[in-house]
Amino acid sequence: MKLQTVLLMLTNFSVKYRIYYEDTDAGGVVYYANYLKFFERARTELLRSVGISQSSLLEQEKLAFVVKRCEIDYVSSAKLDDEVEIVTKITEIRPASILMKQDMVKETQTLSSLNVEIVCVDSQNFRPKKIPQNIKDLL
Amino acid sequence: MKLQTVLLMLTNFSVKYRIYYEDTDAGGVVYYANYLKFFERARTELLRSVGISQSSLLEQEKLAFVVKRCEIDYVSSAKLDDEVEIVTKITEIRPASILMKQDMVKETQTLSSLNVEIVCVDSQNFRPKKIPQNIKDLL
Amino acid sequence: MKLQTVLLMLTNFSVKYRIYYEDTDAGGVVYYANYLKFFERARTELLRSVGISQSSLLEQEKLAFVVKRCEIDYVSSAKLDDEVEIVTKITEIRPASILMKQDMVKETQTLSSLNVEIVCVDSQNFRPKKIPQNIKDLL
Amino acid sequence: MKLQTVLLMLTNFSVKYRIYYEDTDAGGVVYYANYLKFFERARTELLRSVGISQSSLLEQEKLAFVVKRCEIDYVSSAKLDDEVEIVTKITEIRPASILMKQDMVKETQTLSSLNVEIVCVDSQNFRPKKIPQNIKDLL
Repeated sequence: MKLQTVLLMLTNFSVKYRIYYEDTDAGGVVYYANYLKFFERARTELLRSVGISQSSLLEQEKLAFVVKRCEIDYVSSAKLDDEVEIVTKITEIRPASILMKQDMVKETQTLSSLNVEIVCVDSQNFRPKKIPQNIKDLL
Repeated sequence: MKLQTVLLMLTNFSVKYRIYYEDTDAGGVVYYANYLKFFERARTELLRSVGISQSSLLEQEKLAFVVKRCEIDYVSSAKLDDEVEIVTKITEIRPASILMKQDMVKETQTLSSLNVEIVCVDSQNFRPKKIPQNIKDLL
Repeated sequence: MKLQTVLLMLTNFSVKYRIYYEDTDAGGVVYYANYLKFFERARTELLRSVGISQSSLLEQEKLAFVVKRCEIDYVSSAKLDDEVEIVTKITEIRPASILMKQDMVKETQTLSSLNVEIVCVDSQNFRPKKIPQNIKDLL
Repeated sequence: MKLQTVLLMLTNFSVKYRIYYEDTDAGGVVYYANYLKFFERARTELLRSVGISQSSLLEQEKLAFVVKRCEIDYVSSAKLDDEVEIVTKITEIRPASILMKQDMVKETQTLSSLNVEIVCVDSQNFRPKKIPQNIKDLL
């Protein structure tokens, strides 16, 4: 395993987002499905931070990372105008999939936690494919 | 012009939808961008009602109908649990575009009105293409 | 336990939805967070089917049902124009929460499965509250 | 009219956003309703930049800014991973409403343009209210 990978697995990747009207519902807080949008943005930024562009993957290599399984705990609600931090940690890299643990945090409080399994697939038929070595090297 | 087209242009096409939590925001009513989702569903159903499938168009003929211009008036708010009716009328069919007038109605009250221009494009490069004659025949 | 509750726990509640452009993403299939929207619509319709209106609950009794935990398996993708069926089954009713198992099914194929825990809360402070007896009676 | 208002009306307010999977649809580009989300984020940031918080307005003064009318031109599509800039200009301030012109720009290309009318309303009954003088002073 490369030093960079070890570092990424030891380190938490963090990115901040603002809660807008679009994210909330009539209950006055963020709609439960929309937490997944923030988690996905953060995964995309983690990939971008090591030089992986999902649109290039899709267009040039016909590869996509798709979510296979999610476990989400909703601890406390995010509200309009909140600034939330998404903290992402790669917990395991397998031949065709990646496991991550992600938390939405407001100040020191965890609002929501996600365990997610992402699979590398052929974007044409959605069959699992081995994660290319150059991507593994980047991760 | 075919009799069927004349009829479609004379007739209002109507379809009903329920307002769910996903559609609302912290203001307690439907989020302003989400009205456009209901209008789009109704246009899709209008096309489906005459036998036009957008997914087949996209996959087989590499054609898509894309929105070029919208004018929306927000008159009154749709709320959680409301059942709303989208009334759609084709107002003009041009070589590469279609104009429609759509209203979101609750009981007898108009909540929102849309004038929309839809253009037929090549789904690869988004350049306008003439609406195929078989589609014009159906409309 | 009331006969009606027993029946609801034995029976699968089913409702059908169409996949529209709004539900999909650039991968060509339904965006992973949007599956949760269909599951939520189905839970709302299950409640409505026994006479429970969430907007009345919110306005009159300051109660809301909020999601506390989700486990979602993504088995196969839903696509544009698909008609999908959401099959919902109440698996357990606790003093302040309800457990449900929900599947998104296309013809005979399961596309996605959800185990969800919903908690009854005070809509002002989001603290858990006992599910009112009249609602339990309906369920 | 205050100098600050004059400056805000002369100046373009600019904010940048990334396009994520959630924003796109099966056509491969940003879904037409989702452009409105970016425009709304930018209006919120413009208000925040002069010290106006919409959540405080909603909670403390029972005021909300709601959209009354939109005219949107879709010129070219925003795509996955694009970084877009929303340029916002206040064009007119009326007693109970504000007119703005907003453009979504990618590098030097305008992707979409919006003319929007926003009305200040009582958040309880959605009736128009005069924009409070302290807000006018800030704008």
